[in-house]
Amino acid sequence: MPTEITVVPDGHVTTARRFLAGGTFAHIKPADPDVLDLGILYSERLYTAAGVFTTNKVKGAPVIVSREHLADGQAQAVVVNSGCANVCTGQRGLDDARQMARLAGEKLGLAPQDVVVSSTGVIGRYLPMDKIQQGIKALALSPAGGATFARAIMTTDTVPKMIAARFSWQGEAYIVGGVAKGAGMIHPNMATMLSYLTTDAAVEASFLRRVLRQVVDDSFNMITVDGDTSTSDTVVILANGAAGGSIIDARHPVAGAFRQAVRLVCTHLAQSIARDGEGSTKLIEMRVEGAASRRDARLAARTVVGSSLVKTAVYGNDPNWGRILAAIGRSGARLAPERCRVDIGPVCVFANGQPTPFDE
Amino acid sequence: MPTEITVVPDGHVTTARRFLAGGTFAHIKPADPDVLDLGILYSERLYTAAGVFTTNKVKGAPVIVSREHLADGQAQAVVVNSGCANVCTGQRGLDDARQMARLAGEKLGLAPQDVVVSSTGVIGRYLPMDKIQQGIKALALSPAGGATFARAIMTTDTVPKMIAARFSWQGEAYIVGGVAKGAGMIHPNMATMLSYLTTDAAVEASFLRRVLRQVVDDSFNMITVDGDTSTSDTVVILANGAAGGSIIDARHPVAGAFRQAVRLVCTHLAQSIARDGEGSTKLIEMRVEGAASRRDARLAARTVVGSSLVKTAVYGNDPNWGRILAAIGRSGARLAPERCRVDIGPVCVFANGQPTPFDE
Repeated sequence: MPTEITVVPDGHVTTARRFLAGGTFAHIKPADPDVLDLGILYSERLYTAAGVFTTNKVKGAPVIVSREHLADGQAQAVVVNSGCANVCTGQRGLDDARQMARLAGEKLGLAPQDVVVSSTGVIGRYLPMDKIQQGIKALALSPAGGATFARAIMTTDTVPKMIAARFSWQGEAYIVGGVAKGAGMIHPNMATMLSYLTTDAAVEASFLRRVLRQVVDDSFNMITVDGDTSTSDTVVILANGAAGGSIIDARHPVAGAFRQAVRLVCTHLAQSIARDGEGSTKLIEMRVEGAASRRDARLAARTVVGSSLVKTAVYGNDPNWGRILAAIGRSGARLAPERCRVDIGPVCVFANGQPTPFDE
Repeated sequence: MPTEITVVPDGHVTTARRFLAGGTFAHIKPADPDVLDLGILYSERLYTAAGVFTTNKVKGAPVIVSREHLADGQAQAVVVNSGCANVCTGQRGLDDARQMARLAGEKLGLAPQDVVVSSTGVIGRYLPMDKIQQGIKALALSPAGGATFARAIMTTDTVPKMIAARFSWQGEAYIVGGVAKGAGMIHPNMATMLSYLTTDAAVEASFLRRVLRQVVDDSFNMITVDGDTSTSDTVVILANGAAGGSIIDARHPVAGAFRQAVRLVCTHLAQSIARDGEGSTKLIEMRVEGAASRRDARLAARTVVGSSLVKTAVYGNDPNWGRILAAIGRSGARLAPERCRVDIGPVCVFANGQPTPFDE
């Protein structure tokens, strides 16, 4: 029996039961004193957690530390600052990231290993640990704090990005909530994609990891603003089981509904990030049909939407479809040009290897 | 005995003996009646030739036809038009490219198979064959025509790009000449890199092919303006043996000098193209030392100079070296971040995995 997934009006990352969150002004960016720049997300119950991190070989200290902390498939809180990425900061950066987890853990009564830590902002500067410490101390958590948390992790995003989805099964209602901050050619010093998801479903750790990996590949990993992969990209999901019900693994009747809910949340957040890239004026979506494989479709789509020449053509309202074909041609995807067809919106511009006459 | 390679003052593609060239107004772009848009390069002697073409799976009709014509390692002429790329034009495009080679061959008394054909300009339009035919008929060739040819193949290049290098051995003087047109985020409708090289050395066909392949990989294939690979990229070398001397193959004493001369010519032309990308204001060069392999060095260099975020930082005179490291990190090159060092010009900004204090 397929389960209906619905969007919770005004839902966010603490819409799921027994999650608290909040944000505060830690004054990490002295030039921007009126900006929330420190946030904490906390589950009252420890259950399972999973994370997906940047593939960049230059990894921020918080990414290295968070991977260690998630290795056991558990975490109960996330602490995030903006204004300083703590990347390329050597041993001192690692020490600072561990200390940040320890400080948040002390506040919440958790072991540091159950705290995930993220930083976003300028690369190559050390964290101002005194300000981080004071901020963590001052920060107030509440069950309605998801919206404040969404603001606290923003850098040059113009709008906070959050959503929650609901599904039910056998009388149990489950929530998957999510929050994200933007990536892109943002402020000349910053670029990082961060997203945190929560669920009150009791999801088994290895299934949680698998679902997150699959869904991230189809959502966040398919958007591009400027083609540069951040050293800090992070997506983490915390599951606390507060909704009750039996443990959800890959064979559970509700497994598909859970995956769909995570997909809905991640797709919404990924589109919000793409739409809100700093300086962006248009959102390009590409649909690939009849590809030789999922991998070929992915290569073609990412190359076309990432092509500078395609982007300049779209920006200039120029239906220069040759650039779309040229981008597919260099993408590495298997291609039979003589069988290709290109549609821009409802207009077919190229079919069977030949131009189609159309009104520009 | 190492041979000295010198640059010939004001040298170009007909500086090598017994090469003729010219250009004319074929009026392929009706809006631009005063622009040379058709050129022919011709060797009075048939000897050897080699070509390297785009790796894009969408290949222009002229690329497909030229590869066929060079398959036997011989060619004696090149005919090029600008204003229309003859790409994505199906069977009619192939017929047109073959007809263009046939028309040039008739004028010069050559078999069509010994004529290389190129087109550059808008993708998805058919060649105006009547104008091509009239232009080929009207075009005048001369031994001083290399400079005119260089202008005839330009699209939105602001300067013609040409050079010739000389080396001698046992009393014989050899010339390698070259010409190129720019690639880049040029006019909203065009982007193609074309280059033609000539030599009066009697270079054996398989050695000629090998040298061209190697040198192109280290010169043209290392520049980037907008990251988009054209469907028409073409580099062709014609060797006519007019300088006399014995046949030059890989074991010939002058083989190294010949390769060096080709490298000098191609490096100069590649830098000229990068410098003249439309709208470009800066030229970024990256030097990689201590890479695990040539392939790793190449991946790192191409990713850094192609990164939108690195380019915007350089444009804004912002020494944001974190973007350089982030680009290397996503490049696929093997990397030990803790052993990396980054210098911007003479200033070391990062060493041993940590920021180095410096005056911005």
